[in-house]
Amino acid sequence: MKATLIHGPGDIRLEDVPDPTLVQDTDAVVRVVAACVCGSDLWPYRGENPVHEPRRIGHEFVGVVEEAGAGVRSLKAGDFVIAPFMYSDNTCPNCEAGIQSACVAGGFWGDEDRDGRPLDGGQGELVRVPQADGTLVSLRDQPDEEHVPSLLALSDVMGTGWHAAVVSGVLEGDTVVVVGDGAVGLCGVLAATRLGAERVIAMSRHESRQQVARSFGATDVVATRGEEGEHDVLELTAGVGADAVLECVGTGQAMQTALAVARPGATVGYVGAPHGVELPVRQMFNRNVGVAGGLAPARQYLPALRDDVLSGAINPGAVFDLDLPLADVAEGYRAMDERRAIKTLLRP
Amino acid sequence: MKATLIHGPGDIRLEDVPDPTLVQDTDAVVRVVAACVCGSDLWPYRGENPVHEPRRIGHEFVGVVEEAGAGVRSLKAGDFVIAPFMYSDNTCPNCEAGIQSACVAGGFWGDEDRDGRPLDGGQGELVRVPQADGTLVSLRDQPDEEHVPSLLALSDVMGTGWHAAVVSGVLEGDTVVVVGDGAVGLCGVLAATRLGAERVIAMSRHESRQQVARSFGATDVVATRGEEGEHDVLELTAGVGADAVLECVGTGQAMQTALAVARPGATVGYVGAPHGVELPVRQMFNRNVGVAGGLAPARQYLPALRDDVLSGAINPGAVFDLDLPLADVAEGYRAMDERRAIKTLLRP
Repeated sequence: MKATLIHGPGDIRLEDVPDPTLVQDTDAVVRVVAACVCGSDLWPYRGENPVHEPRRIGHEFVGVVEEAGAGVRSLKAGDFVIAPFMYSDNTCPNCEAGIQSACVAGGFWGDEDRDGRPLDGGQGELVRVPQADGTLVSLRDQPDEEHVPSLLALSDVMGTGWHAAVVSGVLEGDTVVVVGDGAVGLCGVLAATRLGAERVIAMSRHESRQQVARSFGATDVVATRGEEGEHDVLELTAGVGADAVLECVGTGQAMQTALAVARPGATVGYVGAPHGVELPVRQMFNRNVGVAGGLAPARQYLPALRDDVLSGAINPGAVFDLDLPLADVAEGYRAMDERRAIKTLLRP
Repeated sequence: MKATLIHGPGDIRLEDVPDPTLVQDTDAVVRVVAACVCGSDLWPYRGENPVHEPRRIGHEFVGVVEEAGAGVRSLKAGDFVIAPFMYSDNTCPNCEAGIQSACVAGGFWGDEDRDGRPLDGGQGELVRVPQADGTLVSLRDQPDEEHVPSLLALSDVMGTGWHAAVVSGVLEGDTVVVVGDGAVGLCGVLAATRLGAERVIAMSRHESRQQVARSFGATDVVATRGEEGEHDVLELTAGVGADAVLECVGTGQAMQTALAVARPGATVGYVGAPHGVELPVRQMFNRNVGVAGGLAPARQYLPALRDDVLSGAINPGAVFDLDLPLADVAEGYRAMDERRAIKTLLRP
């Protein structure tokens, strides 16, 4: 089969690799219908995370079960499935507490599995899925083509934006600020809207992203950043700050802004992997501003968000503004790296 | 009147000072029935916070209204009142959001008021109370003598322990760890119990404090600290960690322990003023462990906790193990500094 490997910074290649087969009887093999490129894939692409040797990449995909192991109970060949960006058994204490991203038997696509065997990445034609019952969420029927991008978005960006909104404690009627206008931030706007926020202030400098934010329910857009951005948000909230803040970037500046625009007693839900973030504990203490979040348990939210997509309540697939054949995966990375695209969808 | 001043490290004196009078028509003057010494009073006493000149000290008191300004609507002379450890108007947006400790018109006892006039401390015979309607919570009748220590505890330590439990999200049936066996930590145990925790693990090395913790509902006591303590708590929780953790110390080691014993997805509620605390954001992110809390809005919780004291549901006054006349305030500090007493009650 064909699969994507990253060889080093800026070096993305689609190559021939062995077809995966079932290894454990709890595995399934899934034929990928659609995959995509994540903002976090750009960390190694930009050399900000090291790449020591060529390796598989991609962690978001939807597809059809090609073969299920004898121990797989909830899935059969032909089922359309959504994969979250990590695999998990969904039965360990951390999974039962809803944090499947801390599953004691789980891990990342493209890494080694718990027995040291290599795992496929999501940007390929086929994927061996460990813990298939715990990992995959199926649809009763094959989805309409129009729903595929939104179902794919649940793999990561929508589940992650949703997590930010949930842990920041968004309640009906709230004023919410979303820091970050990448796909996750935009999905955070959609999540806050879906959770009943009355006012959603999106911080975004890019026209095309502002448009998606507004289509996702943003009532206000603040295009400034840093201290000026903080000032502008505080002005919009009568000097008080927001009831909940979603930090969807992961940089020190984004976190600083998020903490500054949270009203006393509010929580910053953060889901961007922290790069250079320091938490000013004394300032947080004095203002009673908390932080919650982390690596999103996308699996927890999949069943409900799947139903929301199928009912038309949410359309997170609108974050995909570039749709390419898998053969053009390298261009998909380039377009996102150069900010020509918000998010690239790939079709094997 | 007599009031307590701190002149420098280890130098506590009861001195003659002018009687307070009404300044604003929203003020009240309260005759103190009982006051106490706080763990945070020991920071300047030990020289860990600087004392630049002699100043009033003490921020916890209950008493009887001596005189109320013309603009005070909810109180009259003779009312028995509880003062939280900060004054607040209870009407600003932060107060309305339940964070009276961030009141835009509030502040600390012993400081200057918003107009630059000096304020009394709590460890004296009389206190001028700004924003009396917003600050003080009254009782319908005079309390029984046996309830006075518990009502006094609501000024700070019980409101603060309660805040830790609330922001850490303690739910019925939870396993909760309380780090710190000072009066706040012990009140945190009581709060977690009252909120329905099934298992409350108190981390305490001191026999007398362990006894109070058990009387407040601690089901387990862990006497070890640091990595050994973390190990022992994890062993008690089947390696998973606690559903909620209360950090009631404010040191780096206490926070490290608190974060380590929280299960993925849990929140550390922290209420000890941070001294040397660093928040390891990457570790928190990977484990989805959040932090919430800060300077407790004791005022928010006063009405409900007052009713709980009067009904006998809680008895936080058990943290007082030394009861002295105000004249012996210096000994009250020494006893706490030398850990001969958990908390000193003072009677003018």
